[in-house]
Amino acid sequence: MLRLPPAYRSYHVFQPRKLSKETLKSLPTHELLQTLGFVRQSQSGLVNWLPMGLRSLTKIENIIRRRMNNDGKAMEVQLSTLSPKSLWETTGRWSNTELFKLKDAKKASYCLTPTCEEDITALMKNYISSYKDLPLLVYQITKKYRDELRPRGGLLRGREFLMKDAYSFATSKEEAIGIFERVNSVYAKIFTDLKIPFLSAWADSGDIGGDLSKEYHYIHPSGEDTLMKCEDCGMSSNVEKCESFPIENGEHLGDVDVQYTLSKDHGTLVCLYYPRGRQLNWNLALESLDHDLDSSIREKSNKDILEIFQESNEDVMFAKVLRVMDCRLNSRSNFPDFPLKQYLKNNFGKIDDVSLVDAIENEVCGSCNEGHLKAFKTIEVGHTFHLGTKYSKLLEAKFTDRENKSSIIEMGCFGIGVSRLLGAIGEITRDERGFRWPTSVAPYTVSVCVAPGNESLSHQIKEQLDMSFEDDVMYSFNDKMGLGARINYSHAIGIPICVIAGPKNWPNVELEIRGNNYGNESWKQEYETAKDTLKWQITGDKHIVPIESLRKVISIIARDL
Amino acid sequence: MLRLPPAYRSYHVFQPRKLSKETLKSLPTHELLQTLGFVRQSQSGLVNWLPMGLRSLTKIENIIRRRMNNDGKAMEVQLSTLSPKSLWETTGRWSNTELFKLKDAKKASYCLTPTCEEDITALMKNYISSYKDLPLLVYQITKKYRDELRPRGGLLRGREFLMKDAYSFATSKEEAIGIFERVNSVYAKIFTDLKIPFLSAWADSGDIGGDLSKEYHYIHPSGEDTLMKCEDCGMSSNVEKCESFPIENGEHLGDVDVQYTLSKDHGTLVCLYYPRGRQLNWNLALESLDHDLDSSIREKSNKDILEIFQESNEDVMFAKVLRVMDCRLNSRSNFPDFPLKQYLKNNFGKIDDVSLVDAIENEVCGSCNEGHLKAFKTIEVGHTFHLGTKYSKLLEAKFTDRENKSSIIEMGCFGIGVSRLLGAIGEITRDERGFRWPTSVAPYTVSVCVAPGNESLSHQIKEQLDMSFEDDVMYSFNDKMGLGARINYSHAIGIPICVIAGPKNWPNVELEIRGNNYGNESWKQEYETAKDTLKWQITGDKHIVPIESLRKVISIIARDL
Repeated sequence: MLRLPPAYRSYHVFQPRKLSKETLKSLPTHELLQTLGFVRQSQSGLVNWLPMGLRSLTKIENIIRRRMNNDGKAMEVQLSTLSPKSLWETTGRWSNTELFKLKDAKKASYCLTPTCEEDITALMKNYISSYKDLPLLVYQITKKYRDELRPRGGLLRGREFLMKDAYSFATSKEEAIGIFERVNSVYAKIFTDLKIPFLSAWADSGDIGGDLSKEYHYIHPSGEDTLMKCEDCGMSSNVEKCESFPIENGEHLGDVDVQYTLSKDHGTLVCLYYPRGRQLNWNLALESLDHDLDSSIREKSNKDILEIFQESNEDVMFAKVLRVMDCRLNSRSNFPDFPLKQYLKNNFGKIDDVSLVDAIENEVCGSCNEGHLKAFKTIEVGHTFHLGTKYSKLLEAKFTDRENKSSIIEMGCFGIGVSRLLGAIGEITRDERGFRWPTSVAPYTVSVCVAPGNESLSHQIKEQLDMSFEDDVMYSFNDKMGLGARINYSHAIGIPICVIAGPKNWPNVELEIRGNNYGNESWKQEYETAKDTLKWQITGDKHIVPIESLRKVISIIARDL
Repeated sequence: MLRLPPAYRSYHVFQPRKLSKETLKSLPTHELLQTLGFVRQSQSGLVNWLPMGLRSLTKIENIIRRRMNNDGKAMEVQLSTLSPKSLWETTGRWSNTELFKLKDAKKASYCLTPTCEEDITALMKNYISSYKDLPLLVYQITKKYRDELRPRGGLLRGREFLMKDAYSFATSKEEAIGIFERVNSVYAKIFTDLKIPFLSAWADSGDIGGDLSKEYHYIHPSGEDTLMKCEDCGMSSNVEKCESFPIENGEHLGDVDVQYTLSKDHGTLVCLYYPRGRQLNWNLALESLDHDLDSSIREKSNKDILEIFQESNEDVMFAKVLRVMDCRLNSRSNFPDFPLKQYLKNNFGKIDDVSLVDAIENEVCGSCNEGHLKAFKTIEVGHTFHLGTKYSKLLEAKFTDRENKSSIIEMGCFGIGVSRLLGAIGEITRDERGFRWPTSVAPYTVSVCVAPGNESLSHQIKEQLDMSFEDDVMYSFNDKMGLGARINYSHAIGIPICVIAGPKNWPNVELEIRGNNYGNESWKQEYETAKDTLKWQITGDKHIVPIESLRKVISIIARDL
């Protein structure tokens, strides 16, 4: 069941007094959200939600909640925002510099939760004792906190944000992956409900741990992520996780860069060679070496790595060296000097034919080895992880299995950035006239614009629409706005369907469609069968209908938007 | 529009495995809420909301949101939880020791908001420029934080709690009081919707400031507040604010206590004399002296007050002394020694005939001077304040009035403890069988209990009920529970209407009513007219109806519960 959006009363205090074309066209999206009265930034990375923004946010929440309940068979909970230090020390995450930390009057330390693996595991282990209690999927839609040093883009990366975070608990890896797949199918439904085209992609699971991870993205040039998609096999993957091969091996003739690193035991110096001008990809390097690399020294310079190597080995002359060559290199490439002055050739190893760098457009897909890759700039809006036992082991979350033995619970976690979605959809759908929300997100599906003085027409329209659309129609505008200003304002705040009424054509009214149907035109068929009964005419872009048909026509058109 | 409660899936993990009669009868309410799976305490004063508790909490939220939107004409917003130190320094509230305080990575200080006068005023002043923008009423339903040193009673006084806080902005005191009255009428509707008998009472506005304040209370012996109600004129008032008179003036013959205090300029020593054994009432003392008392030294001892007096006056012999006598005293009462050794009789003043102590039961009402007072122990659940310009002045929230002059905005604020309401209603309505929620708060209005193995009957009932009750019916029980255990569990978690079905009487089913109708028996009339059509029989406490009538009968009965 859903949290429906609050009603926006007939006050105009948050409506901008003036709106220039230039403002609507050129203001960055997070400023446009402020100017048009959706949110207002209170401090860097912190926003206050104004009535209209809260309506849109609540609509997104609804869509997620409905799908998680009905399709995900998930249970909604709400955890405390204050999480005790001890839990985060147990999992080794207390040192995270992005945690907001505080002490209470009794000097006990807490953080404001940025995510809840610790807390949910600590909670659920009280209720799980046997395999009969499993599997379970729980979720919450709550404010989260992250002390970003450089918050940017308003809702895209704030310090306080609304997140849907779900957590699964299962008896086995297979069962956990079953839930992982179920949640991914729920996510596909959620993003379909939101009506904005999206991509899902295999991804790196990063600091959160686990070994199976999928991301959900919107394609947009302002995005910070890069997604590679194979035109042949359809595989989509974050560039962080994407293997690619050059059209021809050994095609790189120029300079070669090297990154040194060490095996986990620091006994082997690993030299990663790759074409200058390309970006080394740590995930690919890890896979080439069966994960036997010390990731903790990943950010260090070559000089520091060599020092650590010399400190770790009594005599480097006898130490092992492994040279890993990106497959784009060949023997004529211009390699840098080798750093060690004395070494034994016998201790040298070599791996080639692997790909060590970020994929670029038109390279060959590493998944099918046939298709060519296409690159997209994207905004990430959701992420699913199979976690395994990373948290449950440290927090001792166990169950008794069928053989009456104590086992560690297998977990997964699944996030959607709810406030981030609003920022991302705003960014993607806006045009030179302002926002252009899908009905799933628009603060109202319909606006009713009459010239000042014709409010009685508004009332008659309201009587017609109330039964189907109730609170989802906006009738109130600033008294000072003329009809044209009202229509422009309705278009600027992105209401998908604008009803325009005046005494001249009454009882006919005009509909202007602002929403984008992304090619879904199911209304056309219904129009053909119903146009005579409904007296529904189309003139250019405008629909003209008598007031009695309005409710029906709006229902038909709205379905596509 | 409303936030509807989340669905509770068919998992039984939060259902207690065993429930003894003793547990249900004697466990304190906040522990019963835990045992029955509504909430679970994570740390002192902090709770995690489990699915069933979240359903109940959301129902209360809904009732408040609906009334605030539709009757209050209020706009919903959501402010950031992190509020900057500078705002709280401006209003002098940063020193509050119950603020949770934290610093971000850039060393900027914030508190977690316990209430939002500062933030809402700082926000709204950006949108208010003219008298035409006013009046406005905005509200939010958000988590609030208070670092209580001694959190108690679970939801009754937590460190993190859900609060509805509303704020009004007006051009004049009259307009502000108009909104104050409107919100109080909305509160009466909200508390009526919640179905639990309540009292409203005039109250002291305490630290929050302002001079007009009303509280909403539930009568219950476990309450921490005391309310006095006149049996004659009906006036209700918190004892903190209640003036009373003895049945006969001068009736106190025994010992007299004195509390010294000082006028605001510290030039007058004020001696407050009152009967030993009674509680001095500072609000009454303030009113007796036209508020010319220094409230900041209120908590100090007589010895300290005399020292301050001596330090503030060159020669106390020439300083003024004012003796204030509670009207219960007379000249034969046993007064304490006067503390000053030398004084001038000419500088002495005296006030008598005033009431200085907390009212007690059976005294005469100070409001009508006729009726006698009755005392009630109560739990406070709502509070409304006319604030005046206390916050708007300090935060420079101004508007341009009709005469084009700059004026300070008049404000009010209005709170309801949402999570506290759940704790209070649980405490008040529970009996020896567990909770006994009204339908307004119950996690489900209806439960359907069948013996294990008869799930097909459940499905047939579901088909009948879905149209009217959708997600408000509980069908799922732990497989291991027999029919009796299911009924007991339904009663324990306080579901108002329990439907019991078995193959023997099918297609007739039985209804057990657990909810309290508080004397509302509107169903009886409907029963008389509809019993034949609906084939609705009553046997003792039980209703027996055929499955086709079930939906109708439940609708009729639920209205009273």
